[in-house]
Amino acid sequence: MPHINLPNEFPGIRSLFMFRPETAAPLNALVQTLLHNPHPTLSAGERELIATYVSRLNTCKYCCNIHGAIAQHQLGNKPEIVQQVLVNPETAPISSKLKALLKIAAKVQSGGKNVTEGDVALARAEGATDIEIHDTVLIAAAFCMYNRYVDGLATWQPDDINLYDKMGEQRAREGYLTPPFKVVGSAQ
Amino acid sequence: MPHINLPNEFPGIRSLFMFRPETAAPLNALVQTLLHNPHPTLSAGERELIATYVSRLNTCKYCCNIHGAIAQHQLGNKPEIVQQVLVNPETAPISSKLKALLKIAAKVQSGGKNVTEGDVALARAEGATDIEIHDTVLIAAAFCMYNRYVDGLATWQPDDINLYDKMGEQRAREGYLTPPFKVVGSAQ
Repeated sequence: MPHINLPNEFPGIRSLFMFRPETAAPLNALVQTLLHNPHPTLSAGERELIATYVSRLNTCKYCCNIHGAIAQHQLGNKPEIVQQVLVNPETAPISSKLKALLKIAAKVQSGGKNVTEGDVALARAEGATDIEIHDTVLIAAAFCMYNRYVDGLATWQPDDINLYDKMGEQRAREGYLTPPFKVVGSAQ
Repeated sequence: MPHINLPNEFPGIRSLFMFRPETAAPLNALVQTLLHNPHPTLSAGERELIATYVSRLNTCKYCCNIHGAIAQHQLGNKPEIVQQVLVNPETAPISSKLKALLKIAAKVQSGGKNVTEGDVALARAEGATDIEIHDTVLIAAAFCMYNRYVDGLATWQPDDINLYDKMGEQRAREGYLTPPFKVVGSAQ
């Protein structure tokens, strides 16, 4: 049961956005900018993979499932890419540059000071730009916020994987600024 | 030295805001809403104390110093309040409700799932509302982002405490949406 009185027809962070629209606006604008808006070099799918991986490291079921579903839709419906990144990015079918960026993301998740010059040099050797390194650090840091927000208030996090797929399809298509659909028949 | 090429006349997160204005806008809007805009019950000084305390737990020098300075200016220039909260909130000259909220903030800092029903019940027993519990969790979560962002890119974090006081006075007065002043003669 959530720690505060949240609307029970919206799961995860969406229930918090309904509860507090004042903070929902900048939180949605941030994730829209980081993950959905056009980027000079990183695809939306690659950025969603970073968010999904960090959410898994923080063991946030809602964020990992929903961003994994969005990533899958952004990456041409190949669930094996998301699944393999979650098991081990090193052996996943992704670019060496993205592997190096995911290493930086994991360091950020464990604490900002853990990112070393060596981590950054490795990413640069694989072709990463300043913008890509910056955005990777900020995506990882932002999901250390979103994950704590969702879990810290004990929001409702459904088990039904088909529901995440449906929500993920909507977000992959529309981005983060449109209203969510209600989950009919939900119960907490 | 920062991990990416940042303007060297702005310290900490301000250099990152100059580097990437696209993400600076929602990040500034979020902190303005959480810490500076009018709140039903928590003063700006109380909210700044939560931000300062979490930044100390994350050992982020820049964020702890600047928000400590802002808190001091918001709380009527009583540095002992900030100092005592950083040493031990339990014995600091703050309300029992704020002590209970700082306990929740510390749990969020260590991981969202660590917040227990008991932590929330204690805060309620001290008079905390749903909005206060929500905002405490989100402020703590947000500073787990800002701290990782500032440290994860190895930004310049000055030692001069008078500089933080000057910047803190500006932010306490103006909020977070006005441009920062350049630090003349800075060096990295």
